Order: sequence, then structure tokens, then C-alpha cells
Amino acid sequence: MKLTMKRDRLLQALNDVMKGISSKTTIPILTGIKLDLNSSGLTVTGSNSDMAIQTFIEAVDNENPVIDIHTEGSIVLPARIFNEIMRKLPEDEVDLTVNDHYQTHIQSGKSEFHVLGLDATEYPLLPELKDEYRFDLPANVLKSIIRETVFAVSTSESRPVLTGVHWQIKSDELTCVATDSHRLAKRIIKLDHEVEESFSAVIPGKSLNELSKLIGDSTELIQIAITPQQVLFKTKTVFFYSRLIEGNFPDTSRLIPSEYETTVTMNGKSLFQAIDRASLLAREERNNIVQVKSNEENMVEVSSNSPEVGKVKEEIQTTSLIGEQLKISFSAKYMMDALKSLEGKEVTIEFTGPMRPFILKPVNDEAILQLIVPVRTY
Amino acid sequence: MKLTMKRDRLLQALNDVMKGISSKTTIPILTGIKLDLNSSGLTVTGSNSDMAIQTFIEAVDNENPVIDIHTEGSIVLPARIFNEIMRKLPEDEVDLTVNDHYQTHIQSGKSEFHVLGLDATEYPLLPELKDEYRFDLPANVLKSIIRETVFAVSTSESRPVLTGVHWQIKSDELTCVATDSHRLAKRIIKLDHEVEESFSAVIPGKSLNELSKLIGDSTELIQIAITPQQVLFKTKTVFFYSRLIEGNFPDTSRLIPSEYETTVTMNGKSLFQAIDRASLLAREERNNIVQVKSNEENMVEVSSNSPEVGKVKEEIQTTSLIGEQLKISFSAKYMMDALKSLEGKEVTIEFTGPMRPFILKPVNDEAILQLIVPVRTY
Repeated sequence: MKLTMKRDRLLQALNDVMKGISSKTTIPILTGIKLDLNSSGLTVTGSNSDMAIQTFIEAVDNENPVIDIHTEGSIVLPARIFNEIMRKLPEDEVDLTVNDHYQTHIQSGKSEFHVLGLDATEYPLLPELKDEYRFDLPANVLKSIIRETVFAVSTSESRPVLTGVHWQIKSDELTCVATDSHRLAKRIIKLDHEVEESFSAVIPGKSLNELSKLIGDSTELIQIAITPQQVLFKTKTVFFYSRLIEGNFPDTSRLIPSEYETTVTMNGKSLFQAIDRASLLAREERNNIVQVKSNEENMVEVSSNSPEVGKVKEEIQTTSLIGEQLKISFSAKYMMDALKSLEGKEVTIEFTGPMRPFILKPVNDEAILQLIVPVRTY
Repeated sequence: MKLTMKRDRLLQALNDVMKGISSKTTIPILTGIKLDLNSSGLTVTGSNSDMAIQTFIEAVDNENPVIDIHTEGSIVLPARIFNEIMRKLPEDEVDLTVNDHYQTHIQSGKSEFHVLGLDATEYPLLPELKDEYRFDLPANVLKSIIRETVFAVSTSESRPVLTGVHWQIKSDELTCVATDSHRLAKRIIKLDHEVEESFSAVIPGKSLNELSKLIGDSTELIQIAITPQQVLFKTKTVFFYSRLIEGNFPDTSRLIPSEYETTVTMNGKSLFQAIDRASLLAREERNNIVQVKSNEENMVEVSSNSPEVGKVKEEIQTTSLIGEQLKISFSAKYMMDALKSLEGKEVTIEFTGPMRPFILKPVNDEAILQLIVPVRTY
């Protein structure tokens, strides 16, 4: 393998693919980055045991030559070092030549590196997707789905299925649910056509977080292909593969209350800031619990009491407060995560008593729902 | 104690003073920040066992009222929490009232905190400087002295005196020297008048690093007062106290060679970048050693060889190369630190053989000297 190419194009590709590389892998070859050069361009691949990222650099882009291909071939190079070398080379162009024993010669201007590579045939093959289930989503919608759900996945491996987000397609709806059993985030997306077959998959939260960093906020359509073990997200330049989590995701529909005793509507940003302040002292005692109490005149009082540090209270005006008087305690972190996902919009919060889960949603929007289980403090 | 004041002015003061507070202190009251309110304004103090930072907020600034003083007094409040509360309060003004048992009530808009404070009379007193030795330096000169020397202090406590920078005043010169015994950084400053008495002190490197963050790049004169145990740096708004390190700083003058076999002059930035690249592979093997070799035509070759990762070499043009042929190995980190302190200027490097310390200085500038002890690699 031998090529000369624009260094910035390779850097762009490395920037994407490096997200798939974990320094903690137990499979040595996965600390490397795979380069495959054929007559049409250079394929760059990075992966860990959960996901793989692949990007392709065309030899000619809009009639402008990007890669000068001398000899086709493949090599695996140590990812972190190769990336650092590319960042620090002195000139805009770089020559890369693989010699005997996977010795790779990298030259740019008067700077010359010899890096020991590895045999590319030993690099794990990416999954081949067969009989896959396919649909499309605009990049910005995919990004918002991830933002609105992924924070609620469990970080504990005791129930692995809860470390992923459950994606379900039925007729013309995609429903995405994440829960760590103390809270739940749900987002419903209308698809532009009805599907014949239903489908469901649990996608690891970590993969979705990395995917989210790779995609822009554009309306570019992302092609999604799902098989029983794998999912592939295809953008114009990047293929993102993730394994799926096995196991049955719990049926969460019965967790969501259908009747409410108190309904509060208020500004999401004001509530977020008040909870943030109230939790300043609570964080010190590591429980991070705040209390919300309704009072006359449609105000709610947010408060927190940490005997060793101090106490805090604040009144906030609501837009409306309908139903029974309210007094409830919950994790400030869960509430702030939920409000963050609703982006400071006007929110409706529906309560069914101090020990029953309550839900938050944007006013007049049934597509997003955040549920939080309160805590007992008395 | 009771006051109402502009929140941003208090935040500014906290921003400076927080640099003096260490969460790792073994003296509980030092995790707090001391507030002293008298008729002229508010004094804010933070300290750890090495240094203390004090700043004063005038009640009236340029005829604009900043603090509305109700009752004078003092209190110590938990520093991190108090700082966070100030950052997150909703309104531009804040009320602060100390009640019984050091309970402190903080109010801004509808947000109210009660924070448990501590008795200010238990806060350690700042040192009183008596019979001190005084001189002035412009802020930008002080900042450059620190930048050019402090990186070379020892990080090991095995010889505590080497963790500080040695400041010496003799006739009309201030000489600052730091060394960790593998390298040495020296800066000489001409004072604007001759002093009668000589003076020397060892200032902890950590204190100088924090001081450097507090002072701007202006030509404002900083007043410096030194006693046998303490140094005080006074800016317009901040008093910065540091303890001094006891013990005799070694005489380093005989370390610096007076004769040279090879003198190289070259661009400091190009050399820095070449060393940075050469050390990319060396860093992997944790020795981080690079080699420099002269060749014909006034070029030097920078190279490094890490058998398990690969090797690298690069040729750089020198401006001049006078004397014997050169082949020497040294720590890439030390060389990069030294070059960074010279800010990419044209540098002269003077060598006295492969196992003798070599020195770097800016061309035509005897005020800065960086010395590095080479390593044996064969």
C-alpha cells in the first residue's frame, strides 16, 4: 500500500473514527485503526467490542484529486499515535508507504516516521447485515431522540437490558424508551409511512452517545438498518455499527399513571434554575433530594434541607396549578436531566400523590414524556 | 454583619480568592472563606497552609455605591458552596445577614439560603510583615519571570528547597533560579536602582503558579515585601501572601559551563515542533528521549527510536553551526519546556560534549538561560 494525500482529509476521517476506539480494549488489534486503499479511495475503520465506525475518503472529490494512489493495500496502525502524528506533521501533504513486515513509512516535508503496523487480515470483520429492517430518519430528529432518552439509561450492569434504549416500531410510529427503574424517558416519532412488520431492538446507550457526536444538526436523512444482533446508521460519509443488547426490555406502559391529582404548568427554565440552586446544598450530603410544595396563589415552593450545611427555599410562579395541594420530594439530578431534555420549554407536570411516579411533558406535546419516581423523606 | 451588594463584584473577589483555597486542607476552617465588613468595605480572604489571598471591595467605587452596609462584622462561610450560591443566584443584588450561631441568611430575589457559617475569630491571622525588604516589579515582568523559571522546580519533596524558585537580589540585579537537578532555569532582571543590602529567598513553585493566574499582563507595579519567613505581593486589589521555603538553595553557578565546543543558532519554534514530533513515539515507552545530531550543511537531525513502536527522524536547517560535530540525547519534555519559556524566538544552544550540560538562550539576550543535563543512551 502506498499513497500521497491531503493531510486534513485524513485528519477529518480520523476524528470520526477515533470515537470508536477504546484504549481499554482487551483485543490488541482494536487499539489500531484500519486503512484499506483501493482504486476508488481510502476506507478508515475503528472499532471496539460494542461498535464500529467506518468512513470512506474518495480518491477524487468533485473532480479535485484528494488521494494519489500508488499501490492498493491494507494496514492496521496504532490509532492514538497515528492520529497524533497526522495532527503534528509539518506539511499539508503526507506520503504513506507500507513496507515489509507491516513497517509503515510516513513522510511529510523533512519529517519521517517508521511505525510498526499490524496485519490487516487479522482485524475483525464488520458484521454483514442480512435481511435487515430498514428505515430513515433526518439527522436532527435522530439527534433529538438520543438527547431526550439516552440520559435515562441505567449505568449499572446488573440488568444489562436497561443500559440501552428500547426502539420499537409499530404501524407508523417509532417509540424510544429508556429507564433505570427510578425514572423513564420516552419519545414517540411519527414515521412518514406505515410499516407492515413491527420491530423492536435495544441499542446500547454508549453507542447512541457516540453516534450523536458524529451526526450534525442537519435534515440529511440517516439510513438505519437493523438485524436481530446489529444496527447500522449510514450518513453520507460514515457507517456507524453497534451491537444490540439481548434480552426483553420490561413493559413500561403500566408504570405511566393514567389519572392525575394535581397538574402544574410552568416555565421549564425557571424551574430548572430553582432546582439547581436548591440542590447546591443537598449535593454536599450526597442524597441530592429537593422538595416541591404548592401554596396559595398558584406558587410552588422548591426547598431543600441539609442539616450539616444549611437550607434553601425559593418560590416560583406557576402558569396554572389545578387539583389537590402538592408536597413531594425527588432527586434534583433526575428532575434537572428531564427538564434539560425538554429544553426549557413551558412544561406540564402531572402528579398522582407523594409516593407515585409523576410525569413531565412540554405543554401541548404528547411526543415526549419524562417520568420520575419520587422519594420518601418523612 | 449585614449588607446588600452587587453580586458581580462579590463574584470577582471570590474568583481571585478561591485560588487560595484547597479542598485537601486538614484545617477545617480553611475550607471556608472569610468575610470582614467594616465602614469602608468588605475584605474577602482565602488561604491554605502555603499561601493566603486577600482582596478588598470598596463600599463606594468612583462615587458609585457598591455595598450598602447595614451592620459591620465578620463570618467564615464554606467556600465552594458560597461561591456556587453566588454564581447561581437569580438577581443582580444579594443580601447577606449573619444571625445567631453564625447562621447566615443569603437572599436574592425569591431565592433564600440559610448557610451554617463559622466563627471568624477562629480563622488564622495573616502574617504581619515586620522589617520587611521591599521592591517593585511591573506585573508583566513578574509574570514572565514566573513563566520562565517555575516549570523547572522539582516536584519531589525529597529536597524541599528545590520545589521553590530562588530569588536573589544583589546590587541592582534580581536573579531567579529554579532547578530539579536535571535542568535549570535562570532569569536575571535589572532593577531600576542599586540596593544597599543583598537578599535571598526561596518561594514555593505552587505559590508562584497561583500568583501568576492572579496578575494581568499590564505594567501595573506590584509591590513585593519579603521577610525571612514570608513574601507578600500587593496589586491594586489583591494581597497575595506566601510562606518561604527554609534551607539553603544549592549554589548553581558552577553547574553552568563557561566554555563550549559547539554553538548552534536556530529558530526556536521549528526546533520545538520537531522535538514534539520526535517525542510522539518516545512518549509511548515512557523514557521520552530524543537525539540531536549535526550533519554537513549546517543541518541538525532530530531523531528517536522506540523499538516497540517505531522510529522517527527529521532534518532542520540551522542559522549557524559552529565548532565540533554534535551527537547528544536528552529528555524531550525538558527541551520543550525550555523552548516554550523562550517563546519561539531564535535560540542559541551551546554544547560542551555529549555528557555535559548544555544551555539555551535567546540570541543576543543574556537575561534568560535554560540548562539541560543530557542522558547517556549508548
